[in-house]
Amino acid sequence: MKREFAVIGLGRFGGSICRELSEEGMEVLAIDTQEEKVNEFKEIASHAVIADAQDEKVLKELGIRNIDHVIVAIGDNIQASILTTLMLKELGIKKITVKAQNDYHEKVLNKIGADQVVHPERDMGRRIAHSIISNNILDHLELSDDHSIVEVKAGTKMIGQNLVDLDIRANYGCNVVAIKHGKTNEINVSPMATEVIEPGDILIVIGADKDISRFEKHLVVDDE
Amino acid sequence: MKREFAVIGLGRFGGSICRELSEEGMEVLAIDTQEEKVNEFKEIASHAVIADAQDEKVLKELGIRNIDHVIVAIGDNIQASILTTLMLKELGIKKITVKAQNDYHEKVLNKIGADQVVHPERDMGRRIAHSIISNNILDHLELSDDHSIVEVKAGTKMIGQNLVDLDIRANYGCNVVAIKHGKTNEINVSPMATEVIEPGDILIVIGADKDISRFEKHLVVDDE
Ligand SMILES: Nc1ncnc2c1ncn2[C@@H]1O[C@H](COP(=O)(O)OP(=O)(O)OP(=O)(O)O)[C@@H](O)[C@H]1O
Ligand SMILES: Nc1ncnc2c1ncn2[C@@H]1O[C@H](COP(=O)(O)OP(=O)(O)OP(=O)(O)O)[C@@H](O)[C@H]1O
Ligand SMILES: [Ca+2]
Ligand SMILES: [Ca+2]
Ligand SMILES: [Ca+2]
Ligand SMILES: [Ca+2]
Repeated sequence: MKREFAVIGLGRFGGSICRELSEEGMEVLAIDTQEEKVNEFKEIASHAVIADAQDEKVLKELGIRNIDHVIVAIGDNIQASILTTLMLKELGIKKITVKAQNDYHEKVLNKIGADQVVHPERDMGRRIAHSIISNNILDHLELSDDHSIVEVKAGTKMIGQNLVDLDIRANYGCNVVAIKHGKTNEINVSPMATEVIEPGDILIVIGADKDISRFEKHLVVDDE
Repeated sequence: MKREFAVIGLGRFGGSICRELSEEGMEVLAIDTQEEKVNEFKEIASHAVIADAQDEKVLKELGIRNIDHVIVAIGDNIQASILTTLMLKELGIKKITVKAQNDYHEKVLNKIGADQVVHPERDMGRRIAHSIISNNILDHLELSDDHSIVEVKAGTKMIGQNLVDLDIRANYGCNVVAIKHGKTNEINVSPMATEVIEPGDILIVIGADKDISRFEKHLVVDDE
C-alpha cells in the first residue's frame, strides 16, 4: 500500500517529514524553490523538483491533483504558504496539512480550508518546557488537558522495591504501564507486581496530572 | 519552589518555552535582540530584556551566573548560538539546553559542553510523519526504537465488543492502558476487561511497534 504524498518546503520541518515518510516506504514528491534543498532530497524522495509552489501552472504540471495528501511546510513567507494552500484546495487535494507561523496565519489557513494546521516549534517548546520543569520526566504524552503518560527515572526511594511494595495505584492513583530496564535497555510492557526496581530503570506512568505530580514529588524526586 | 530559568531567543520555539515555563509559575528571564519580541514577553516572563547574548559583559550584568538553567533558542545565526553557549559554559551555568539547526551545529554544541541539544523542527516532523502515515494513530510516544505508546481511534470492528472479547493482549501482544470516551471526553486509566467500546472511543495502546502495526491493521483500519 504505497500512498502518495507531496511535501512543499524542505526546511528542517518539511525536510524531516519528507525523510521520515520516505524511510517508511511512502511515495513522496519533494518541492522547494532552492536548488540546494532539492538536491539534498534527490536520493531520499521518490521525486524532487525545484519549483515555486505559488505557480498554479507548475503545480498542475507536476500532477499534484493525483496526490492524496500534501504537506505545506513553507516557513517565513506566510503569503506563499497561504497562496499555495488556496491553490491546492482549488485543485481538489483531499488532505492538506500546513505549518503555521502564528495564530493569525492559522486562522487564515483554517478559513481557506486547510485540513490540519500544525505549529511545530510551539508544540515542541511546550513539550520541552515540561521536561525542563521536571528533571525527572524524560518524555510525556498529553492524553488530555489533565491526563498524561510520562517517562520517569526511578528515584532512589524506589530502588529494591517491587510494584506491590510501592502500591503506586492505591497511594497515588496512577499506574505503571511499562518499565524500561536501564541495564538491558529492554522494555517490559506488562510489568509483574513482583518486579523489583533497579537503579537506572525508567517507569512509564499513566494518570491524572495532579496524581502524577504527587507521585513524582514523593517517590521520584531525590531530596537534595 | 520557584526555579530560575533564562530563555535566550524568543522565536516560536524559545517563545513557547518561555510562555510555558512562566505559566507553570517558574521565574524566567527572557532575552532577545529584537525590541518587538521583548515587548511581547514583558507581561509574560518575570523579566524581559533587549540584549545581544553574544556580549559577555551584558550576560554578566544580567546576573546570568545565578540562573540554574539557560535555554539558548537562537535560530538562524548559528555563530551567535555557539558563541553564547560557550560563554554560558565559561560563566559556570549548571544546565544549558540549546536548539540546533543541523547535525554539524549539534556536534559543535556537544563539544563545547551543551548539556542538552534539541532539534524541535526535526523531531516534530518525525512525529507528524508518523501520524500522517497512519490516519488512525492520533498521537504517539516513542519509548525506544521498537516500542511505542499510541492513541488510536476505535475501528468499527471493535465497536460493541469489550476488552475480553477482543483479547488484544493474547492476539496482538499489546496492552490497552487507557480508554478516552468520545461521548464524555473522560479518560479511564484503569479500563476494566468488561468495558464495552463505543463509537468515538480512543484507545491508548502500548507495545512493540510490529505488534501495534498488526493490531492496527486488523482491528483499527476500516476496510475501504
Ligand atoms: N513558494 C515556495 N515554493 C516552494 N518552496 C518554498 C516556497 N517558499 C519557501 N519555500 C521553501 O520552504 C522552506 C522552509 O521555509 P523557511 O526556511 O522560510 O521556514 P522555517 O520556518 O525557518 O523552516 P524550518 O523551521 O522548518 O527550518 C525553505 O527551504 C524554502 O526554500
Ligand atoms: N545574539 C542574540 N542574542 C539574543 N537573541 C538573539 C540573538 N540572535 C538571534 N536572536 C533571537 O533569536 C530568535 C530566534 O531566531 P530565528 O528567528 O533566527 O530562529 P528560527 O529558527 O527561525 O526560530 P523559530 O523556529 O523558533 O521561530 C529571534 O527572535 C532572534 O531575534
Ligand atoms: Ca524511524
Ligand atoms: Ca527561520
Ligand atoms: Ca499548559
Ligand atoms: Ca523554525
